Amino acid sequence: MLDFTHDASRQSWVASANAADTEFPLQNLPLGRFSEPAQPAPRLGVAIGDQVLDLTRLAATLSPVEAGAAAAFFAACATGDLAAVCALPPEAVTAGRRWLSDALWEGAAGVTTRQARLSPWLLPQAAVTMHRPLEFKNYTDFYASVFHATNVGAMFRPDNPLLPNYKYIPIGYHGRASSVVVSGTPVRRPQGQTRPDPEAPPVFGPSRLLDYELEVGILVGRGNRLGEPIPIAEAEGHIFGLCLLNDWSARDIQAWEYQPLGPFLSKSFATSVSPWVVTRDALAPFRCPAMARPEGDPAPLDYLWNEADQSGGGFDVTLEVFLTTARMREQGLPPVRLSQSRLRDLYWTPAQMIAHHTSNGCDLQPGDLLGSGTVSGPTKDARGCLLELTWRGSEPLALPSGETRRFLEDGDEVTLRGFCERDGFRRIGFGECRGRIAG
Amino acid sequence: MLDFTHDASRQSWVASANAADTEFPLQNLPLGRFSEPAQPAPRLGVAIGDQVLDLTRLAATLSPVEAGAAAAFFAACATGDLAAVCALPPEAVTAGRRWLSDALWEGAAGVTTRQARLSPWLLPQAAVTMHRPLEFKNYTDFYASVFHATNVGAMFRPDNPLLPNYKYIPIGYHGRASSVVVSGTPVRRPQGQTRPDPEAPPVFGPSRLLDYELEVGILVGRGNRLGEPIPIAEAEGHIFGLCLLNDWSARDIQAWEYQPLGPFLSKSFATSVSPWVVTRDALAPFRCPAMARPEGDPAPLDYLWNEADQSGGGFDVTLEVFLTTARMREQGLPPVRLSQSRLRDLYWTPAQMIAHHTSNGCDLQPGDLLGSGTVSGPTKDARGCLLELTWRGSEPLALPSGETRRFLEDGDEVTLRGFCERDGFRRIGFGECRGRIAG
Repeated sequence: MLDFTHDASRQSWVASANAADTEFPLQNLPLGRFSEPAQPAPRLGVAIGDQVLDLTRLAATLSPVEAGAAAAFFAACATGDLAAVCALPPEAVTAGRRWLSDALWEGAAGVTTRQARLSPWLLPQAAVTMHRPLEFKNYTDFYASVFHATNVGAMFRPDNPLLPNYKYIPIGYHGRASSVVVSGTPVRRPQGQTRPDPEAPPVFGPSRLLDYELEVGILVGRGNRLGEPIPIAEAEGHIFGLCLLNDWSARDIQAWEYQPLGPFLSKSFATSVSPWVVTRDALAPFRCPAMARPEGDPAPLDYLWNEADQSGGGFDVTLEVFLTTARMREQGLPPVRLSQSRLRDLYWTPAQMIAHHTSNGCDLQPGDLLGSGTVSGPTKDARGCLLELTWRGSEPLALPSGETRRFLEDGDEVTLRGFCERDGFRRIGFGECRGRIAG
Repeated sequence: MLDFTHDASRQSWVASANAADTEFPLQNLPLGRFSEPAQPAPRLGVAIGDQVLDLTRLAATLSPVEAGAAAAFFAACATGDLAAVCALPPEAVTAGRRWLSDALWEGAAGVTTRQARLSPWLLPQAAVTMHRPLEFKNYTDFYASVFHATNVGAMFRPDNPLLPNYKYIPIGYHGRASSVVVSGTPVRRPQGQTRPDPEAPPVFGPSRLLDYELEVGILVGRGNRLGEPIPIAEAEGHIFGLCLLNDWSARDIQAWEYQPLGPFLSKSFATSVSPWVVTRDALAPFRCPAMARPEGDPAPLDYLWNEADQSGGGFDVTLEVFLTTARMREQGLPPVRLSQSRLRDLYWTPAQMIAHHTSNGCDLQPGDLLGSGTVSGPTKDARGCLLELTWRGSEPLALPSGETRRFLEDGDEVTLRGFCERDGFRRIGFGECRGRIAG
């Protein structure tokens, strides 16, 4: 639903939020968890321009009259746990957004008072440490890009790239929640078993085919009770918000371990997420239809089909991957963009993922993390991982530093970015999801 | 290490702990989480005979002098969270066990005082509700029985039942932590996509091939930090204890969904665990060598090989599965035993699972749950699931009620049991892991 919080003409009294190139204008208001060096316990905050507003401490000072309709939102913020905010009814999250939009607005009346009231809880983002948005309890990774699935399948089964279940099932698997880390955390190259020579026994050592995967993370809002599926018509209301997600993958470990129970240690060494969660409310102007199924594809089964989801269940987010190598940094070269793809090109919507995930009665918990799977598109420059971009290493990338890349080398830094644009609306961004490979 | 806590001659002043057929003699002392109807917040307790000693409330009353060497143990118990006990150094857990063994002992001196001191914290097990041992954050399921893997493989690939990686890798996958439930919780038959007719589109409906899997759960003790693997020589010290685990499986959903990323909704509708965790200390007399690898099998790679683990890293636990159907209950028939197998027949030891799981740097957290995978043995009566016992339904089981079973029907109740026996030692049991199928 579009309301005044999306009004592009609204400016903030936080000047940096009005800059044309900010990712965090007044219309975004993403939530995250931060701390200060002297006070390491994480608190919740909202990004506004280059500042962060401390919601946990602000909440402790608000009177019931001041909090008004946002009382439940601030009570959740007071816990310092984003899962408590995710667990709120969607209306309560919306009330919090409206409160913040008004409080940070450079409107005519009362701006001096509002500014004086909130300024003590405003900190420069440069002065705080960001944490993962919450201590994720459950992480599920989907495989929702048909372009990615087709590319990967084609490498292994040229005549039959897509498995027969793909167009019926939003394929997913349980990921490892403990090793989800926040953007900026170094990623150690994993050791593991690989079998480079299929005629010889496997060997144990550092992965040589280390890759990133460009994904979006979907944070679950209210959960469901075990045994009580979420119908597709209600699934939309269980989306709390989106972040960026890099599902680092060791392709050589994966190839040797994944039969018959799926990826395990090839993924669980690290999964990076961006620190800021862009709420579903903020994304309202950027919704779009589900991807049009190609002629001849089966319709989704009834439990995955909903008219509103088909017409508006997609998210129009543009996603980008940038790489810098150690040599590029030495040479002062800027990051090079490896790909650009669109979240709207997913074969399955987030609501379909939620309906499918709970269709067997599995319970989702507030703040659970769902990965979209690698977001690739139909063109070569929209391939969301090196496995696809270099076609298993057979087509190395040429970099401006004169280097080439088949897979990631030590010192390589991968940065994911995402943004939404639409005429008549402020551009909003996701910040970044960054990780550098440590040997 | 064997000490006085294993001395079979020690009797308890809790009379029921001295019964020949108790599963919880003074030598066992398993830990669990319970509540009373009027006080629903779970507390930690230890099972002794048919009683439970309330460790959380006892801890709050103990003076430092009384707690002595067990002070850290009781401080952890005071939290009511078994993860806090798992996180202790193993010596602190041992100190707690010794304290409890002495306090509950019917020794000559001071028994009246001890009994008077502890009796207020003793409750009949029949009067309390048991909970899952802790709110599991991560659950990983292994596939460590070569007999199970060979049987299942033979159904699908008769000429090549074991995949080439099996004898090198302790195969495992990430399971769903949120849907782990305690024994006694009804298990709803899941709905899901299946494709009974491979020439027709898939259908959505109740699973028709519902199965149990007889497993043991391994609770992780102290964890490790991300990026810091646990070497095989140290892995033993990261085992906190064992429980029973039933990895309920919908075989028809599994067959259609599992390619290429492994089992997902076919497993995540419910996983049952027994309420009592038998500590590693309690199991010390029942350790045994790792399974002897058949002639010609490769030796474990270096990171999975440790002499002490090979000679004593196994657990000699006998495991059993019992079934009652609705008709059997109507006819007053006792449960029928479907299988008996031995945990010592696993191809991989728990220490190897932990070393492998962390070899890529993945962090284990205190209280994480590792499933052994279905524990089957070399003989037909040692097959740990119906898929194997009925050979995919082709050899139905005949039951004393005149019924037959290929897979589980509504109303069927599956009970797992486990125990350890050795000459000169008290028999210790695991209690039960029970679940009834609700339609």
